[in-house]
Amino acid sequence: MKIKIGILGYGNLGKGVECSVLNSEDMELYGILSRRDPSSVKPLSNTKVFKIDEILSHKDNIDVLVICGGSATDLPVQTPEFAKYFNVVDSFDTHAKIPEHFENVDKSAKSSGKVALISAGWDPGMFSLNRLYAEAVLPNGKDYTFWGKGVSQGHSDAIRRIDGVKDAKQYTIPIDEALDAVRSGSNPEFTARQKHLRECFVVAEDGADLNRIENEIKTMPNYFADYDTIVHFISEDELKANHSGIPHGGFVIRTGKTGFNNENNHVIEYSLKLDSNPEFTASVITAYARAVYKMNKEGMKGCKTVFDVAPVYLSPASAEDLRKRIL
Amino acid sequence: MKIKIGILGYGNLGKGVECSVLNSEDMELYGILSRRDPSSVKPLSNTKVFKIDEILSHKDNIDVLVICGGSATDLPVQTPEFAKYFNVVDSFDTHAKIPEHFENVDKSAKSSGKVALISAGWDPGMFSLNRLYAEAVLPNGKDYTFWGKGVSQGHSDAIRRIDGVKDAKQYTIPIDEALDAVRSGSNPEFTARQKHLRECFVVAEDGADLNRIENEIKTMPNYFADYDTIVHFISEDELKANHSGIPHGGFVIRTGKTGFNNENNHVIEYSLKLDSNPEFTASVITAYARAVYKMNKEGMKGCKTVFDVAPVYLSPASAEDLRKRIL
Repeated sequence: MKIKIGILGYGNLGKGVECSVLNSEDMELYGILSRRDPSSVKPLSNTKVFKIDEILSHKDNIDVLVICGGSATDLPVQTPEFAKYFNVVDSFDTHAKIPEHFENVDKSAKSSGKVALISAGWDPGMFSLNRLYAEAVLPNGKDYTFWGKGVSQGHSDAIRRIDGVKDAKQYTIPIDEALDAVRSGSNPEFTARQKHLRECFVVAEDGADLNRIENEIKTMPNYFADYDTIVHFISEDELKANHSGIPHGGFVIRTGKTGFNNENNHVIEYSLKLDSNPEFTASVITAYARAVYKMNKEGMKGCKTVFDVAPVYLSPASAEDLRKRIL
Repeated sequence: MKIKIGILGYGNLGKGVECSVLNSEDMELYGILSRRDPSSVKPLSNTKVFKIDEILSHKDNIDVLVICGGSATDLPVQTPEFAKYFNVVDSFDTHAKIPEHFENVDKSAKSSGKVALISAGWDPGMFSLNRLYAEAVLPNGKDYTFWGKGVSQGHSDAIRRIDGVKDAKQYTIPIDEALDAVRSGSNPEFTARQKHLRECFVVAEDGADLNRIENEIKTMPNYFADYDTIVHFISEDELKANHSGIPHGGFVIRTGKTGFNNENNHVIEYSLKLDSNPEFTASVITAYARAVYKMNKEGMKGCKTVFDVAPVYLSPASAEDLRKRIL
């Protein structure tokens, strides 16, 4: 009996989940649910597409519903709503609103007896796990998270809204000297500027004032003003040829001391280097969909995060096999 | 109410647990249990020392007993025995015998209603966790574990048994080219020689035949014959001054592919750089002692490994605080 997965929302993340489910021997893809006209949705595989309005008629056929909407407006509504009927997983990533989202989803999932896992992905997600493990093991220490090198969708969008900009891609780049200072165990304090650099590739409209655009980018509050920012103007063809990927990644580093006189220093470092941010996020989500299914089978219910999931649930292998093979 | 910890066995690991417990606000050290005459045991702190024979009289005063013996002969006997009376944690690290150890400990802990966590530390332990998470997230991939740079006690001991050797320290060193090949995603196959280098610092007895010693080291089956080995003869003072620490560490790297045509590559890397192998191991053990206590409070019982423990149990913080602060 394979775990039957439904995908709600078919953007980059939904496509990533589709690939990941197809690549999981213990899962099968039941179908895609979309707000769009199903005939206009073209899945990568030959899976079915259903209209979201009829979702409840598929209730008994879907073991876990993976909700692939955006954190700003989709997930705050969809996850609490569909946790009333399905085991669900989402990738809610507005860090500041996680407690509120958790409460809303928990109410639904407790009343329905389902398991709802929120905020799966890599940050929140794998990075959060590493912050927790490292803090628990080295309480006398400090952790740092760096992002990149990778494309920030939010910063790219902010550039595109500037008058005279046709298209743009922004890379967030961690600064090597800052990484090295952290690894040294010196517990440095950083300004935003000292941790990350912002590099922008901008396609301007014909005849646009490049100096004005560059200045508007570099002085944009919140997004760029607090960082060293490099702006390159390039052609549309160049952007397409060299900057169409969605790579990302980053580092979680904790240093801490042990010993009767705190005489010994330790460095724990976790890093990701990802060709495709949405596909890796989808891979994490898919592993947690498996966990959600198994946990619900054991009678668990309510809202969970990556912190609440014993690692064994993520694997298709048995606990016995894992102990023998990789413990 | 603090978690009361008992330490059984007071070598380097037991001392590390002592420091780690003293550094944990939610724990208190009940005492040390030793096979030695208590008056001959000198704790770093002012904790009490008891004779192991009277351990059962402390049964109700110890929430978790941390068993700090060796994997060869101590733990296979002690962990199943004391899981009959206590929640326990050990750092059993003979990978091939983990399934057998698990079964023995599980029987005891199930019958007593206690939780017994085996094989805590960093390998097995944190490295195992990272192998599991990475494999679950990137099933279409391959992982590699490298150890070092660090002191191998077993290899150092092997050198010390050679005729004419007064003292020795052996460092296991991962080979940079191999690490880079793994990170490239090329899924290389390695011989032992290609992954790790062995560097030995040897104090010879006066008049000993250095050529013979070097040759005996380099050709020693299992320990050195399959590796490139560097031998330095140094003075006793030099060994003491420059090689008295017990550093260690290593890398768990998994690369894997995603995408409909496996077109995207990802690298997950976890690394440790430890000034003190036993103190870091002790820090992991202490976090798992906390988990064992909480899990038993919730009614769980039987043998567990790091794979079975939801990360939230490791932290003294509440689930709510963790979600808000580091998710």
